[in-house]
Amino acid sequence: MASSNDHLVQSDDPNHPANLIPSLCAKFWHLGWVTGTGGGCSIRDDDLVYLAPSGVQKELMKSSDLYVMSLAAQSASLFKRQRIYLREPKGLKPSQCTPLFLAAFTKRRAGCCIHTHSQWAVLVTLLLESQNKNVFEISHMEQIKGIGKGFEKSGNLGYHDTLRIPVIENTAHEEDLTEFLEEAMDEYPDTYAVLVRRHGVYVWGENVHKAKTQCESLDYLFQLAVEMKKLGLPWIRSPELVNLQAQYK
Amino acid sequence: MASSNDHLVQSDDPNHPANLIPSLCAKFWHLGWVTGTGGGCSIRDDDLVYLAPSGVQKELMKSSDLYVMSLAAQSASLFKRQRIYLREPKGLKPSQCTPLFLAAFTKRRAGCCIHTHSQWAVLVTLLLESQNKNVFEISHMEQIKGIGKGFEKSGNLGYHDTLRIPVIENTAHEEDLTEFLEEAMDEYPDTYAVLVRRHGVYVWGENVHKAKTQCESLDYLFQLAVEMKKLGLPWIRSPELVNLQAQYK
Amino acid sequence: MASSNDHLVQSDDPNHPANLIPSLCAKFWHLGWVTGTGGGCSIRDDDLVYLAPSGVQKELMKSSDLYVMSLAAQSASLFKRQRIYLREPKGLKPSQCTPLFLAAFTKRRAGCCIHTHSQWAVLVTLLLESQNKNVFEISHMEQIKGIGKGFEKSGNLGYHDTLRIPVIENTAHEEDLTEFLEEAMDEYPDTYAVLVRRHGVYVWGENVHKAKTQCESLDYLFQLAVEMKKLGLPWIRSPELVNLQAQYK
Amino acid sequence: MASSNDHLVQSDDPNHPANLIPSLCAKFWHLGWVTGTGGGCSIRDDDLVYLAPSGVQKELMKSSDLYVMSLAAQSASLFKRQRIYLREPKGLKPSQCTPLFLAAFTKRRAGCCIHTHSQWAVLVTLLLESQNKNVFEISHMEQIKGIGKGFEKSGNLGYHDTLRIPVIENTAHEEDLTEFLEEAMDEYPDTYAVLVRRHGVYVWGENVHKAKTQCESLDYLFQLAVEMKKLGLPWIRSPELVNLQAQYK
Repeated sequence: MASSNDHLVQSDDPNHPANLIPSLCAKFWHLGWVTGTGGGCSIRDDDLVYLAPSGVQKELMKSSDLYVMSLAAQSASLFKRQRIYLREPKGLKPSQCTPLFLAAFTKRRAGCCIHTHSQWAVLVTLLLESQNKNVFEISHMEQIKGIGKGFEKSGNLGYHDTLRIPVIENTAHEEDLTEFLEEAMDEYPDTYAVLVRRHGVYVWGENVHKAKTQCESLDYLFQLAVEMKKLGLPWIRSPELVNLQAQYK
Repeated sequence: MASSNDHLVQSDDPNHPANLIPSLCAKFWHLGWVTGTGGGCSIRDDDLVYLAPSGVQKELMKSSDLYVMSLAAQSASLFKRQRIYLREPKGLKPSQCTPLFLAAFTKRRAGCCIHTHSQWAVLVTLLLESQNKNVFEISHMEQIKGIGKGFEKSGNLGYHDTLRIPVIENTAHEEDLTEFLEEAMDEYPDTYAVLVRRHGVYVWGENVHKAKTQCESLDYLFQLAVEMKKLGLPWIRSPELVNLQAQYK
Repeated sequence: MASSNDHLVQSDDPNHPANLIPSLCAKFWHLGWVTGTGGGCSIRDDDLVYLAPSGVQKELMKSSDLYVMSLAAQSASLFKRQRIYLREPKGLKPSQCTPLFLAAFTKRRAGCCIHTHSQWAVLVTLLLESQNKNVFEISHMEQIKGIGKGFEKSGNLGYHDTLRIPVIENTAHEEDLTEFLEEAMDEYPDTYAVLVRRHGVYVWGENVHKAKTQCESLDYLFQLAVEMKKLGLPWIRSPELVNLQAQYK
Repeated sequence: MASSNDHLVQSDDPNHPANLIPSLCAKFWHLGWVTGTGGGCSIRDDDLVYLAPSGVQKELMKSSDLYVMSLAAQSASLFKRQRIYLREPKGLKPSQCTPLFLAAFTKRRAGCCIHTHSQWAVLVTLLLESQNKNVFEISHMEQIKGIGKGFEKSGNLGYHDTLRIPVIENTAHEEDLTEFLEEAMDEYPDTYAVLVRRHGVYVWGENVHKAKTQCESLDYLFQLAVEMKKLGLPWIRSPELVNLQAQYK
């Protein structure tokens, strides 16, 4: 059946999901977010979910490499771990990230979910591990304004808000992360991202635009956080600093 | 009315402001200066001011996304916070940076103003904050020669000059930075840039060429300053060093 | 004879080895893996071995610059250090890496071997040298899953496996590394890479795809390891940490 | 007269100096070697010297922006500081680097000279300054083999050679560096590069290929040296290490 649905990934529109996923993955490869086939990206267009396959060189992906799934059909299936594809590429394997992407689509109605192995994300989880922490917190950074207020809320976080991104422990098999990702979503209902210890980050958004720009803003903050640690600067602005600042103005 | 002025952003000349802003923004995205829709750029061509919109992916901006304003009409308006556009793109919002760009155009007759969220700029403001300082100072660097002497002065700074860039505190709303930016311009009349704590930097110049090359020179110096701090090297060359150098020659 | 075999490097197929080597080398130059003519790449297609020449600017290499060799003819030769080429480019010299690439092809049946001078690889060997060690070890990193289990084994390493890459000492002449590389292969029969102290790394794989993605995964891990050292984080996860993690969940 | 010689910078050959200088400068801009109009490049083709102008954005340079000079005519001139151009671009100014490029051409018969403001070069000069040193020394690095043995010597440095690059102090005017550059050339007759404190580096070679690849190799070593300093690793391998290494083999 799958081969009969090749039209699902054929379009002249550069903004069609089947064209966007390859161009985004190439962009992410150049940013160092996806490397050695790690990382990935999925887009949901109403009921249709477009998925990058496993094991492909991310800067060389083609539209014809993509899987397509019906979210409704998948959700209705009694066997959650069995995937039902509308379109399957020949000679490739589905991504182990699939159930994690689906969690963002079903639990948060996301339109796009990005998974990176960014070294900044990994280093942040390592720095938190050495302090026995499982949430990343940073405050008083303009770039925080690039992140939305949360699920079904309009508008973005403000400069004075503290951004909190939960960290879940890594598992041997990526699929097994799903329940922990869902738990983190329940515990942090407004988060648009979950860090995975020694692994990377999952970031989503209402649409491709929001998922991508939120992923950029978070990666920027993760990199900044690592550089701040090297320079001995704290991630949360000291309350005393506020008074000092008022004073020397 | 706005839609009737689409010709203002239509030109075959790659050096037309409506074409330059998208190509510059794409370049700045690749340099990491503007990310997650943060940062921006505006060009003034005589009375016409071309402005990048809010919330657009900077590497994907199009000429048709730009706002155009008459500087004279805007300045003559009794309601400073109300913007009067000659041309407005559909479905987009004006940038919160607009009044800051206008400050550079009106107070310094700049032809171009660039706003980056460069991590080097942010880290410099954090390092200064930890020392309770609100001015960045660096001396004896060749790249200082890339910065002009100041408003209505001809020529550039010399190798022996100390470069000073004021730092203003960030505000919850970007528009509210305007008065502090203007104060910093008054206090440092020859500066071509103002750093914003935990946010980034505004850099301007007489024309696009000068704004861009000054922004590059400053970003180079900010990055160098951060690396120097990691290596324990002071930003201002020690006066004792001069004698030592003379001695070992 | 050589000039008569130009057809060996002429193909319209971008995936032909004679076209892949130049495009891979250009990619590696942009990644900083090969610079100042250092580093290189070779592909084996059944019996035919395609080799980048010595001393060429890697981002400017052309198909016509390549050497081609018969692996069987070379292996049958009584004089191992004498090279027999099916095709030689005019005015160029063979790469000193040739016998090292051949070792990967003959001892491990590799289809592609990449040699980088990546600074991360070099820094890892320097950090190990300062601890008197000749094997790089890292554990509990998702990216480890990008590396195969080993020679004639199917599947990849898992998250809980410790990745071990042997380090050999550098020699004055690159060809003289061959016996040490082969010794390291014997001692670590499942390794897909050998680090060379103060020099770089050799990485191979069954085919171009696997060699390239393994090289990317290793370079990612070398960079991460250097950044971890700057931040005081150990390369091997502490066993105590496991208990602590279980406890705070 | 100058305008009559436009044919000197007009060629369809991408390897013509008038085409190579713009393409090299664009490449160097992307490497971060030339920024904010700083840095530059000159090529000598027999008696003709092609020079990038002052103050141009390096990634946007055009063939028509170049100056051309006769080396013989310039050398025969009684007034060394007066430049005699065969071809001058309109509306531009000659580079202050001109006499430094000429020094490489006349004293070392170089075919190309590159001047970068690379931050790694600048940081190396700062680290040496803090130790009161005016020569950069590094040993036991494979990439040293990318540098030639010296003026009128054939072959390249070996792995066991110590690379030495002299550092001269910066001056207020770039032209005034010339005599110090020439002094350094006299003191280190085999060097292909001179570092300039708090400024950058001049690198040359017999031809474009050698100047560029030597510049890449040196920049690689400068970056490595800075990273080594951050990690507490010495630039010169300890003599004791040799014995230890022999021992643990």
